[in-house]
Amino acid sequence: MTRFKLTLEYDGGAFVGWQRQDNGPSVQQALEEAIHRFCGETVVTFAAGRTDAGVHAWGQVVHFDLGRDTEADTVRDALNFHLKPAAISVLKAEAAGADFHARFAAKARLYRYRIVNRRAPLAIERGRAWLVGMPLDAEAMHAAAQLLVGHHDFSSFRASLCQADSPMKTLDVLDVTRVDDNVLITARARSFLHHQVRNMVGTLKLVGEGKWTKADVAQALAARNRSAAGPTAPAEGLYLTEVWY
Amino acid sequence: MTRFKLTLEYDGGAFVGWQRQDNGPSVQQALEEAIHRFCGETVVTFAAGRTDAGVHAWGQVVHFDLGRDTEADTVRDALNFHLKPAAISVLKAEAAGADFHARFAAKARLYRYRIVNRRAPLAIERGRAWLVGMPLDAEAMHAAAQLLVGHHDFSSFRASLCQADSPMKTLDVLDVTRVDDNVLITARARSFLHHQVRNMVGTLKLVGEGKWTKADVAQALAARNRSAAGPTAPAEGLYLTEVWY
Repeated sequence: MTRFKLTLEYDGGAFVGWQRQDNGPSVQQALEEAIHRFCGETVVTFAAGRTDAGVHAWGQVVHFDLGRDTEADTVRDALNFHLKPAAISVLKAEAAGADFHARFAAKARLYRYRIVNRRAPLAIERGRAWLVGMPLDAEAMHAAAQLLVGHHDFSSFRASLCQADSPMKTLDVLDVTRVDDNVLITARARSFLHHQVRNMVGTLKLVGEGKWTKADVAQALAARNRSAAGPTAPAEGLYLTEVWY
Repeated sequence: MTRFKLTLEYDGGAFVGWQRQDNGPSVQQALEEAIHRFCGETVVTFAAGRTDAGVHAWGQVVHFDLGRDTEADTVRDALNFHLKPAAISVLKAEAAGADFHARFAAKARLYRYRIVNRRAPLAIERGRAWLVGMPLDAEAMHAAAQLLVGHHDFSSFRASLCQADSPMKTLDVLDVTRVDDNVLITARARSFLHHQVRNMVGTLKLVGEGKWTKADVAQALAARNRSAAGPTAPAEGLYLTEVWY
């Protein structure tokens, strides 16, 4: 038996999310079916991040076990062949130790959120960024974001469906930078609550528009109540970018 | 009467190209129909670059005349409304002088060509770059590209359908740079022959793969014969990026 670690890129717009669901195609199902077509084995795959519908991945990490001995490069190429035409690409396949676990062994996860800050609609990148028409002050957003960095109770940024045992998380990095029309938010932590990044982005957008101050963000965090923070930013701007072990 | 100058972004994958054709939707037709829906006027639009099927634009420039007096910002917003759901966005609308001509007044055009140089298929950016699996030496490509810069007879890089009077063109810039997996080619000239950028890219790719040397490129240029140069790179990697007047 060999445990394989895959690094995946996918366009979340085509899927109901990572996890298998009854209401449409999931990345997990597409991947497990491709593995079955490749080698006839029925496996369960585990992912570092259970991305929601519409959320993209530049570097999702997944593991699964294969009974038969296979070269890692063969796994990569065969899965890419059998995944077609799904919008999923296996960037890398590696043999991993039997104790490797894509979800539980992750030491840090990096998400990027992309806002395009302009009035005109998106043509080339539709579904791949959040279009915000009102001019955003990225420096003010970055300054406010620093209030969220650290070990906090993130209940105000936690989806009601979140299954985590505790709302306590340590946010290592929350950077906001502007590159031309793009406002890019980078969030790194060992793990995140459900919708945490999108809820933080939705809150920082209020700061960028000048509707909220830093003090409002501090208050929202202290409230430990979802209704105290800003709305959830749309899924289409979010990318699971890198996972460290 | 007011002449308007538009700056457009579009996803070329959805169109048979800029120019009206009988065999499918063109950017020109979609735009002229949106203008008609907006104000009831039937106009002809002129573009800086007659991009082919599949070629994208970050900054195509177009002009047309409207009989009725309208604010430029209203033209932009109304056209964006009436263009939906076409993958075309009006980034900017400006009133221009009566002698402005998007095609004939252009002093320089900038095209960017994007190669993703990796083995794994494109998931998020399918249709938006040329996927090349064999490792490319971008420095060798850049060095060879410099042989094409300057005033030359570009017959070897000219499509047979090209309608230009002369194959003589002055290429100001042809840069090749690598950013991670991306090999980016930037080409700037007053104007280009039909397929010139894609034919230069297809030739430079041979250099990047080590199949051709700089001397082969010099020979191809000197031959003044399309069959002497490399194949045409696919449309999906090409972006009309900026036009100067």
